[in-house]
Amino acid sequence: MTEIRPLSPPVGATGDALVIFTPSGKRGRFPIGTPVLTAARQLGVDLDSVCGGRGICSKCQVTPQFGEFPKHGVSVSADALSPWNAVEERYDRIRGLPEGRRLGCQARIEGDIVIDVPPESQVHRQVVRKAASEREIVMDPATHLHVVEVAEPDMHEPRGDLERLADALKEQWGVERVTAPLPVLAKLQQALRKGEWQATVALWRGDEGPAKVLDIWPGFHEGRIYGLAIDLGSTTIAAHLTDLRNGTVKASAGVMNPQIRFGEDLMSRVSYAMMNPGGDREMTAAVRTAIDGLAQGLAAEAGIAARDILEIVFVCNPVMHHLLLGIDPVELGQAPFALATSASMSLEARDLGLGQVNEAAQVYVLPLIAGHVGADAAAVALSERPDQSEDLVLTVDVGTNAEILLGDRSRVLACSSPTGPAFEGAQISSGQRAAPGAIERVEIDPATKEPRFRVIGSPLWSDEAGFAESIPGTGVTGICGSGIIEVVAEMRLAGLLDAGGLIGSAEQTGTPRCEPQGRTNSYLLWDGTAQGGPRISVTQGDIRAIQLAKSALYAGARLLMDEMGVDHVDRVTLAGAFGAHISPKHAMVLGMIPDVPIDKVQSAGNAAGTGARIALCSVAARREVEQLVSRITKIETAIEPRFQEHFVAANAIPHATDPFPNLLAEVTLPHVAFNAGGGEGRRRRGR
Amino acid sequence: MTEIRPLSPPVGATGDALVIFTPSGKRGRFPIGTPVLTAARQLGVDLDSVCGGRGICSKCQVTPQFGEFPKHGVSVSADALSPWNAVEERYDRIRGLPEGRRLGCQARIEGDIVIDVPPESQVHRQVVRKAASEREIVMDPATHLHVVEVAEPDMHEPRGDLERLADALKEQWGVERVTAPLPVLAKLQQALRKGEWQATVALWRGDEGPAKVLDIWPGFHEGRIYGLAIDLGSTTIAAHLTDLRNGTVKASAGVMNPQIRFGEDLMSRVSYAMMNPGGDREMTAAVRTAIDGLAQGLAAEAGIAARDILEIVFVCNPVMHHLLLGIDPVELGQAPFALATSASMSLEARDLGLGQVNEAAQVYVLPLIAGHVGADAAAVALSERPDQSEDLVLTVDVGTNAEILLGDRSRVLACSSPTGPAFEGAQISSGQRAAPGAIERVEIDPATKEPRFRVIGSPLWSDEAGFAESIPGTGVTGICGSGIIEVVAEMRLAGLLDAGGLIGSAEQTGTPRCEPQGRTNSYLLWDGTAQGGPRISVTQGDIRAIQLAKSALYAGARLLMDEMGVDHVDRVTLAGAFGAHISPKHAMVLGMIPDVPIDKVQSAGNAAGTGARIALCSVAARREVEQLVSRITKIETAIEPRFQEHFVAANAIPHATDPFPNLLAEVTLPHVAFNAGGGEGRRRRGR
Repeated sequence: MTEIRPLSPPVGATGDALVIFTPSGKRGRFPIGTPVLTAARQLGVDLDSVCGGRGICSKCQVTPQFGEFPKHGVSVSADALSPWNAVEERYDRIRGLPEGRRLGCQARIEGDIVIDVPPESQVHRQVVRKAASEREIVMDPATHLHVVEVAEPDMHEPRGDLERLADALKEQWGVERVTAPLPVLAKLQQALRKGEWQATVALWRGDEGPAKVLDIWPGFHEGRIYGLAIDLGSTTIAAHLTDLRNGTVKASAGVMNPQIRFGEDLMSRVSYAMMNPGGDREMTAAVRTAIDGLAQGLAAEAGIAARDILEIVFVCNPVMHHLLLGIDPVELGQAPFALATSASMSLEARDLGLGQVNEAAQVYVLPLIAGHVGADAAAVALSERPDQSEDLVLTVDVGTNAEILLGDRSRVLACSSPTGPAFEGAQISSGQRAAPGAIERVEIDPATKEPRFRVIGSPLWSDEAGFAESIPGTGVTGICGSGIIEVVAEMRLAGLLDAGGLIGSAEQTGTPRCEPQGRTNSYLLWDGTAQGGPRISVTQGDIRAIQLAKSALYAGARLLMDEMGVDHVDRVTLAGAFGAHISPKHAMVLGMIPDVPIDKVQSAGNAAGTGARIALCSVAARREVEQLVSRITKIETAIEPRFQEHFVAANAIPHATDPFPNLLAEVTLPHVAFNAGGGEGRRRRGR
Repeated sequence: MTEIRPLSPPVGATGDALVIFTPSGKRGRFPIGTPVLTAARQLGVDLDSVCGGRGICSKCQVTPQFGEFPKHGVSVSADALSPWNAVEERYDRIRGLPEGRRLGCQARIEGDIVIDVPPESQVHRQVVRKAASEREIVMDPATHLHVVEVAEPDMHEPRGDLERLADALKEQWGVERVTAPLPVLAKLQQALRKGEWQATVALWRGDEGPAKVLDIWPGFHEGRIYGLAIDLGSTTIAAHLTDLRNGTVKASAGVMNPQIRFGEDLMSRVSYAMMNPGGDREMTAAVRTAIDGLAQGLAAEAGIAARDILEIVFVCNPVMHHLLLGIDPVELGQAPFALATSASMSLEARDLGLGQVNEAAQVYVLPLIAGHVGADAAAVALSERPDQSEDLVLTVDVGTNAEILLGDRSRVLACSSPTGPAFEGAQISSGQRAAPGAIERVEIDPATKEPRFRVIGSPLWSDEAGFAESIPGTGVTGICGSGIIEVVAEMRLAGLLDAGGLIGSAEQTGTPRCEPQGRTNSYLLWDGTAQGGPRISVTQGDIRAIQLAKSALYAGARLLMDEMGVDHVDRVTLAGAFGAHISPKHAMVLGMIPDVPIDKVQSAGNAAGTGARIALCSVAARREVEQLVSRITKIETAIEPRFQEHFVAANAIPHATDPFPNLLAEVTLPHVAFNAGGGEGRRRRGR
């Protein structure tokens, strides 16, 4: 009985009925005739309503339960709810009410009852499920739809329509202060009159300021409102069009960042801005145009109007952040890598010149962690919450820059490491982006030194029957990032590569696939010339590029471990679109990441994108990530002498000086040493 | 001794010196060596400083007083202040320090002293002096310049430049929360580095939200910041370019409202919007372009950069308000005359597409009183403050619509009355706008019925020698609004017009200047045909137009008096550019305004423009006008049957049914009655 709220009189004292809501278990006593929605609201049960109980939105659907409920100590008779009324009849006739459902605002309590609130009727339903961290993200978007009845104008009390709308929102929805931007003011009067003084407003409450009307529709607006979660990367702009009422992703798309024509990596774009007056503005315009196109494309794909996109959340690295906002990134190209601003930002889409989405659309940009550690890393932190981890977790978002987070409940450290674009297939002789035809998985037989591989777009291995026919389009075209990692690791495992990274000759390795190339050797992975395709080899240069990239990544992780005062981590999370495709075993053979049991290496998929979605769906999450970022300890790799030491020491695959040799239980790295004709290998090995 | 602040120990207890500031009279004891600025701040003395005591802005100049001051009970020796220091020497060498002046931040207290703060060193100096109401407006602008020293970036604490600027503003100027719009973020980093981490910011604190950085300059910014006070009228857009540091008007200009091509008066513009799809947007674009041009022109005239205009305040009638903001004014053309919004607004200039002023310039729009009583009337109320008047004051802003305020400390009423454009010279046969060549003053000899007049641009009366040569340009061109009022009143006084407004014939009046025109007569004021000029007559139609206009004005005033339950007012204030030129005597003869002693009729000049300037110079005044408007009782003339009654009854000049015949002590209106050939005069008289 202690669950009964004090406001409800005890059983039997009045004619009140006991009402129990599931799954929350909230219960209370209410006078006969109380609408279910009213009871739910008084008990704080999470039952949705857009129309505020006017019987028009149907968001408050509930499933009454009848019969005996010993668990709840209640018996529910068939007449415990009022019969269907005209509103429900009409709704069912026009739209159809699922079997067993009632409208919470119409059904009235007539006796003790158990009422189930189905997931789709919950406002704060869980949308982003994080299996790894066992954490649930519940809907708490900044923008909600509300139906309001607005008082008609009165010449004797000549306040404006907006002021009367504000009164209605205060009275009917408890909204204290309301503003409306000019585009909404421009359509306000017509909407109110067309809807005969009933309207649906999209109300944004994203900060502590007044609530903002983002849009208004006459009467009850049947439509939905949407948001874009955008992961603005140096290479790719990925966006998820998300239903702001339930968090559902309606469409996702990625486009190339058009800034690539100004520079492949971030630093070359900074250089472009430095060398070309107005170059930053060119790049800003290019990326904004691309975002506009992405918004339009996603809206078309989902069959919605781009004008119904009311919010955009951005995550991006610091250079992209500044270029998006129209800030010259020149300071990010040199120590001390000073950001123009590091805090999160709330803007309007038109501030960014975005013209496809709603005129009043709101933008939220996640905070930056440091000059080299961006809002994308903050988004990874929001998605993965290392600060809530019991064990010590290393989170690595692999890209042109790797963002690295190390931490647990006590402390989180962050740094960025300049891995370069090798992991993305750039600067690799046969490298290419992950696309159909790209080699993504590789195995090399340690005995025969013969390779087999799979390409994106085909389910078959290259030595399986029908492989050639199974490849889409142009056949085998190159090697993508995950393929590069696997082939280099496999070459090391097969004894084709020594610990210093030198490729052996045909004589040294015993396979004609090792071919001389200048003063070094290369390994022939695939010869497609007979079919008019490419000859795909791994060159000594490719190995060096991968060594540089993996050394940078490893050195960053080690630097954080030094700072944390630990010599091992409990688990590793690989984030990023690329991270999701990396084979943990090969990454460890290569020495990209510190040694952990292989089952402790998880992929978080596009964690930055997930973080963006979480921030899009939850105002509370925005406040959380702002708090979290302020608590993260930032380590600047560029000024840490130990970074250079770790970087040099991490060059080998593996190397003896590393206290954490990347030796997996099931892997024995061969003891191989080659002496190539040229000096390059010797110089490296001589270190 | 009671004036000494408790924090200061008593005389003689320590070596502290007594410091007395004039004109405030504030006094206190301070340790020897205390800078004058520090003492002033601790005592709350109004002593300006932009640089915060760094010796670079020279705003804190004071004039120490030496000798005996029996009134203050103190004797000041010549060494009561520290000698000039190097900073003062340098400042005097480069810029010149006026005789007797010291820099308050450099001069240190060495003994008991009296220190005068000259007006130009006071922040809150009086700028708009309202002789009529004995009220002073003191500078309290939303935007101030502040010099700050910002911490250099630190890679170990990688917060953004904006965050470190915010820290500096908090620490050095007590500003709690700071934001910066994107245009400022785009120039922030360069400004801080160029100024070697010293910068001057223009900080806007116009509402309860965070302070906003509107602009930033490297080091100490020698320049000034400006605001525009704009009175956006149906016919004319008048703007005052104002120095935001001291309220000085640097330049003023008016341009024709380009919307005139869409309709001469407001209702025809509303009709244009109703009849032409997109017509409201055309008009919005036209007025915004004109404002841009005005800003540019004023900046050029004052020799400043338009980018240094950081604030704009608008006052305007409701239709202009909506058209400025991009809101279709269609609802204002029909009952219930519903405003889209009535509250004051804070916007950014770019929201209005204004591109000449600073990119981050802030806009404040005064609140509207009702659907027909605009922000211009609110501005008149702010300027005239009827709510602070001990006696009952009727304030009339005469234009195409007359805004009428009636009130005293107990209550203020407001209405608008559709006078039409006759008072502005439109719809008058020889009417014209007030411009050189327009007749503005008229006298008619009651004996000879001969007129004499003065035209704008000449100091001579028309019967004085050299008059013809003294007129600029094209000679006498027409009659402006004030001339029309005078000529009609003079015709009535000279017996050329009967109480019903009928012009007598030549026989009836005994002057050949009364000429037949159709079935009525006209009065020839000036025949310029011999010189190739116009023949300027007052026609019966002109008289009717003026009668309609004055009846509307009078009826509005009477409606408010009815509502207030009074049958007389204590004083009348005529506002508006036109109001300033009306002769009170003639206005009363005509019956435009209720009877009051003629010395109780005052001109407030362009009170709406003054109200705009006050709001530009004072944030407190913005809050005051918002409060004031919320307390004003609005009367809608269009739905008050008594308005029609008063309107009809007020047609005569004067007429018997009026309980307040417009009889001045010194004026005896002749008993005249004409019977014209046509029926029009008879019909009117028959009422």
